[in-house]
Amino acid sequence: MDAARESVEVNGRRYLRPGAPVVVVCVDGCEPDYITQAIQAGAAPYLQRMLSAGGSSLIGDCVVPSFTNPNNVSIVTGVPPSVHGICGNFFYDVEADREVMMNDPAYLRAPTLLAAFAQAGVSVAAVTAKDKLRTMLGHGMKGICFSAEKADKATIAECGIDRLLELVGMPVPSVYSADLSEFVFAAGVRLLETRRPDLTYLSTTDYVQHKAAPGTQEANDFYAMMDGYLEQLDALGAVIGLTADHGMSPKTDAAGRPRVIYLQEVLDQHLGERAARVILPITDPYVVHHGALGSFATVYLPAAACAHATRVLQDLPGVDVVLTREQAVERFELAGDRIGDLVVVSDHLTVLGTSASRHDLTGLTVPLRSHGGISEQKVPLLFNRPLQGVDPTRRLRNFDVFDLALNHVASPRQGLRNAA
Amino acid sequence: MDAARESVEVNGRRYLRPGAPVVVVCVDGCEPDYITQAIQAGAAPYLQRMLSAGGSSLIGDCVVPSFTNPNNVSIVTGVPPSVHGICGNFFYDVEADREVMMNDPAYLRAPTLLAAFAQAGVSVAAVTAKDKLRTMLGHGMKGICFSAEKADKATIAECGIDRLLELVGMPVPSVYSADLSEFVFAAGVRLLETRRPDLTYLSTTDYVQHKAAPGTQEANDFYAMMDGYLEQLDALGAVIGLTADHGMSPKTDAAGRPRVIYLQEVLDQHLGERAARVILPITDPYVVHHGALGSFATVYLPAAACAHATRVLQDLPGVDVVLTREQAVERFELAGDRIGDLVVVSDHLTVLGTSASRHDLTGLTVPLRSHGGISEQKVPLLFNRPLQGVDPTRRLRNFDVFDLALNHVASPRQGLRNAA
Repeated sequence: MDAARESVEVNGRRYLRPGAPVVVVCVDGCEPDYITQAIQAGAAPYLQRMLSAGGSSLIGDCVVPSFTNPNNVSIVTGVPPSVHGICGNFFYDVEADREVMMNDPAYLRAPTLLAAFAQAGVSVAAVTAKDKLRTMLGHGMKGICFSAEKADKATIAECGIDRLLELVGMPVPSVYSADLSEFVFAAGVRLLETRRPDLTYLSTTDYVQHKAAPGTQEANDFYAMMDGYLEQLDALGAVIGLTADHGMSPKTDAAGRPRVIYLQEVLDQHLGERAARVILPITDPYVVHHGALGSFATVYLPAAACAHATRVLQDLPGVDVVLTREQAVERFELAGDRIGDLVVVSDHLTVLGTSASRHDLTGLTVPLRSHGGISEQKVPLLFNRPLQGVDPTRRLRNFDVFDLALNHVASPRQGLRNAA
Repeated sequence: MDAARESVEVNGRRYLRPGAPVVVVCVDGCEPDYITQAIQAGAAPYLQRMLSAGGSSLIGDCVVPSFTNPNNVSIVTGVPPSVHGICGNFFYDVEADREVMMNDPAYLRAPTLLAAFAQAGVSVAAVTAKDKLRTMLGHGMKGICFSAEKADKATIAECGIDRLLELVGMPVPSVYSADLSEFVFAAGVRLLETRRPDLTYLSTTDYVQHKAAPGTQEANDFYAMMDGYLEQLDALGAVIGLTADHGMSPKTDAAGRPRVIYLQEVLDQHLGERAARVILPITDPYVVHHGALGSFATVYLPAAACAHATRVLQDLPGVDVVLTREQAVERFELAGDRIGDLVVVSDHLTVLGTSASRHDLTGLTVPLRSHGGISEQKVPLLFNRPLQGVDPTRRLRNFDVFDLALNHVASPRQGLRNAA
């Protein structure tokens, strides 16, 4: 084997070229119990069969903040935010004194492995649910890259593909629907059937997970849908690696009322009006289903106020940990210049807000479920093949999914064929 | 008001005598989402109505280890294990070199408030699901105290009541059943109807919670059953305070396989055979539904080996924290002579075992759900009345439930009547 020809190195990691087509799926907000409960309810017969017949099931840690963008970017770069720079949807540009949305690939500090594989002549496809992720994940990538949200607007020039509604056979779904994710899976199957990319990345949206608990009918219906498409991908010969960007927890009391700590109000009271600036990196243009409430916040404040603020925040019921920038950078592998002076993480039943008046909770028609904290860090790592050569003491991450699918899948049927 | 006459002091806390009958319910393993999901599913119409019409809903922290005995004892004493001494079901008696079960009230270092109220002339009743708790909770108490498990054997001499099956109208339930808890609720209603105790404590079993996730049919059926009995208690004029001994988490990967760290095996490998002794304080005579696997363990080992063992254990994927005895005593308010040299807590998807050969998992017919860790520390605190005078910054505990029900319930209808 010619190792130089047969593998691709990106961001300090080496990946073997795919033998069979490899499909990596990031199921947004997939707390592992969603799959466990769907299997229990008989709603995921393919996964049940696959996992009991040679498939692999592991648990990995996602990136904290356990939000969508940092984790999707970690998965497609294979590295933590300290390397790729995306620590949330927002950061505060201190010099410009403004809150900046990090949707622009200009903020990306590392190439994606999708781009690197495409560059090396591997055919690559990436499909996201929301368009906010598409530009970031597709950055520098030659191949197919589109979002379900704007599937009707895909052009060959921009997305490497067009006439998608015809290909997939579905109308453009609402951005707040399970259908948006179904479109992603259906597109993945149709792409494999018609163009057979060597490497496919499918990334869904957590609309259902924000609303429905594991084991409930609505959740099981979602996973039954997913199960059917995974079965088709498997039947088409794909090596499937499935993970999640983050887990999901109820963020309410037993009565279903959101448990919110309004950090800006607390800090205004203790440090003086506007002495501190609270940034919620979950905030993005699509907040209806979670009211921009997650379990991770970062705070910019004068150095002299840090110790006092830390004491105040640590004593609040519902706060899990308060870390300085340096502690957070070390513990969560974040980029120090993209987070504030303090990082606040709340517990599995609590979310962090700025001020009550700045959160519109009228869209919460069911009890709030959300993420962002350490309590949503555990995610599934599933493969429809046995794995080999994985050190059992290794701390697995969701952003190891391409490494596992490309370098550790072993199967007489297929797998590391090119590496032989 | 004559404060000395009208209140009872026990373990350094003062409780007003009940005005209306007070019923405190400890719902074993009641992760708050069980109630949220039951309400969402329409299975708990009484709780839904009660909580939207003047009832109170709070979240409190239980005692870690989040096990049944330490928490039930904390609830009925109003103090943490550092005062009452019960840190688990088992401890290792170093001098006698044997593992000792702490079911015997001889291990109790503080009187219960049930006993103190009875002593002060208040009529008291306590009903537990399993008999293991009855002797502990009823220690020194004059009044009615029996278990559903041995309801047919209750005598006036031992339990302050007899002919229970006739009173309740149910047969003795299996110790592994939802019926065991139903018997507790039904007995509570019948006691209130026939004897109207001033103070009642009802404590159920988590058989259902170990098996069924929040929002699933089996869980909702349990909470629908509970809801009906709570409605009856309310209609009989009771002030109801409801909490839990601990929460409940899935302890599996997505495939439903238990995630177990076998600590004795790890320590034998690193420190030498039997250099360390691992104690699992969840162990008791009823282990079928959880295989004696929980998220809290304590380790006895030579002082010289502590630092090494800590490093080894902290690096294990699935371990949440490793604390020295002193750290654990401080953080969890435990009794230092009833725990080992180290305390190990695992994460929300992981449990701790001794050696694979010592755990019988054949009883696990559904994916393991268990407790014991920090991830199961949040429990509901519900009241069918408004509360007054509760400091919003106070860290509430499940063992504040009697304080809240007796000292903070406010209602024009009833409540602090005797205190007027």
